[in-house]
Amino acid sequence: MTNIRYDVVGIGNAIVDVLAHADDALLAEMGVAKGVMTLIDGDQAERIYARMPPGIECSGGSAANTIAGLAALGGRGAYVGKVRDDQLGQVFRHDIRAAGITFDTPPAVDGSSTARCLVLVTPDAQRTMQTFLGACVALGPEDIDPTVISAAKVTYLEGYLWDQPRAKQAFVKAAEIAHAAGREVALSLSDPFCVDRHRDSFLDLVSGHVDILFANEAEITSLYQTSDFSEALRAVRGHCRVAALTRSEKGSVVVADGGTVVVSAEPVVQLVDTTGAGDLYAAGFLYGLTRGLDLAICARIGGIAAAEVISHVGARPEAPLADLVRQRLPGIYS
Amino acid sequence: MTNIRYDVVGIGNAIVDVLAHADDALLAEMGVAKGVMTLIDGDQAERIYARMPPGIECSGGSAANTIAGLAALGGRGAYVGKVRDDQLGQVFRHDIRAAGITFDTPPAVDGSSTARCLVLVTPDAQRTMQTFLGACVALGPEDIDPTVISAAKVTYLEGYLWDQPRAKQAFVKAAEIAHAAGREVALSLSDPFCVDRHRDSFLDLVSGHVDILFANEAEITSLYQTSDFSEALRAVRGHCRVAALTRSEKGSVVVADGGTVVVSAEPVVQLVDTTGAGDLYAAGFLYGLTRGLDLAICARIGGIAAAEVISHVGARPEAPLADLVRQRLPGIYS
Repeated sequence: MTNIRYDVVGIGNAIVDVLAHADDALLAEMGVAKGVMTLIDGDQAERIYARMPPGIECSGGSAANTIAGLAALGGRGAYVGKVRDDQLGQVFRHDIRAAGITFDTPPAVDGSSTARCLVLVTPDAQRTMQTFLGACVALGPEDIDPTVISAAKVTYLEGYLWDQPRAKQAFVKAAEIAHAAGREVALSLSDPFCVDRHRDSFLDLVSGHVDILFANEAEITSLYQTSDFSEALRAVRGHCRVAALTRSEKGSVVVADGGTVVVSAEPVVQLVDTTGAGDLYAAGFLYGLTRGLDLAICARIGGIAAAEVISHVGARPEAPLADLVRQRLPGIYS
Repeated sequence: MTNIRYDVVGIGNAIVDVLAHADDALLAEMGVAKGVMTLIDGDQAERIYARMPPGIECSGGSAANTIAGLAALGGRGAYVGKVRDDQLGQVFRHDIRAAGITFDTPPAVDGSSTARCLVLVTPDAQRTMQTFLGACVALGPEDIDPTVISAAKVTYLEGYLWDQPRAKQAFVKAAEIAHAAGREVALSLSDPFCVDRHRDSFLDLVSGHVDILFANEAEITSLYQTSDFSEALRAVRGHCRVAALTRSEKGSVVVADGGTVVVSAEPVVQLVDTTGAGDLYAAGFLYGLTRGLDLAICARIGGIAAAEVISHVGARPEAPLADLVRQRLPGIYS
């Protein structure tokens, strides 16, 4: 059996975020749907960018943010995702490797440029995302290295991958390798509209191939087509080993064989930008889970990591996450 | 005579900043000199970047930061600087135009990539800068459009341009056009080491061709080769119409025909990153000056703009500067 070298390997869309502040009037004027992630093509990206206020660029991508959070907590992470051999691709590669994460997916040498997500942050700290997938469409099963997948306790997949046929093949291949090696598979539902687009196959996945599920309230209720969170809770039970469901300021609910754990949200001094909240919750949760900690503690670490990332602009941690967890949960690092 | 269309046209090195947090130990390990700007070549930039922690990218460049600050205050700005036609060049172009600034310098279509400044921010909020000038070396006198220079009340030049022969020619051409049109010329000394490199020509410039001089304590004492700030004050008097000299937390001193004005620093709630402090002081000062305000008020607007930019990471304003000035100096916007 392959030795464990990673706590989690994440597979996702490798994206550089372009973040700018905007108000609701500008969103309306630009005709973009608030609070969700919309896929756009290269021409739309040019048009929207031209109308965006001055911004900053930082590495993003849902699963990549999660692995960056895991690494900041002290976990061992690897990442699989496709950039191009351009300047933004170099930025993405630098940032993830500088965080101590193994990232060996070869960049695309032709085709679209590195993916960009145009993020408009409104004064209520909501983020509205327009994503140009660019080079991400080149991710395919050939990018899945069985030795890396088998060496990770958990293979973590972002639902967004389901939007592209070849990434979906990569996703399925990775899940099969993980299970064959006796590892676990985690899935983040990513976005309620992503769930809408792929409900049937997500339902099939969750009940048959996913051990650990991450979703927020909008996503899990969309999956089971109900407006009632309790009904969604009942529906998900038994479909996977662990379902960690986040509810913003109401904290999170973890559904598992042993029962249900309800954990409050961590205090947030100043809510600035919710980009990455779900990604960082998953980071903290998986950090705890791969160390065999109680589910309630996993959920609290997730909450601490999420609270840090929403207190500043951008979806990767800025403060030393391990120190924050050490302060709030003494005894975790021993 | 050309109609006034701009308050200030800035000419400088068009740079994208790559900012990351670092501690003194990492600076020492990387062998970089703390607190100053060092010029590096492309190979050095690759090596240093490879060792930098994860970062964020945002548009920078000393004079460009100043014009961005001027625009945020409500001033009319234009900018001249050279990027390449690459992704970081597009970022620079987008950000400066999105701020409402005229920027029509054609990008270089071959040669080095867009300039990058690797900025390491230490916990004491000091910034240490390593600059790869890249496409900036392609800036030349052909990029100076006489109709733009003649249409600006002030032509603002960053001392850093003096490091490249053709940019220096552009600088001199712009100053001559400005004076021939009856406009004023402002110069920022940029950096004590930049002053060291070009002391004789800066002394010649300041006494013969510059109307408004910006310098901090280290730069003005380096210019006059004295360790005594009062002596530097005496030396600069009469050399140019106005010298605005910044002293960090001690505020600023303005030397002019009518006498000397001493202004306290503005309060700063949280000092995070001093990148851009001098650039934004110049922005506020020039905003006031081009509106004919008293020199003490000009210095206070400069202090308010500088205090905003050092309260967050990055060298461009994030908060609405005009609102901040309106709150602190009621009556400025009437």
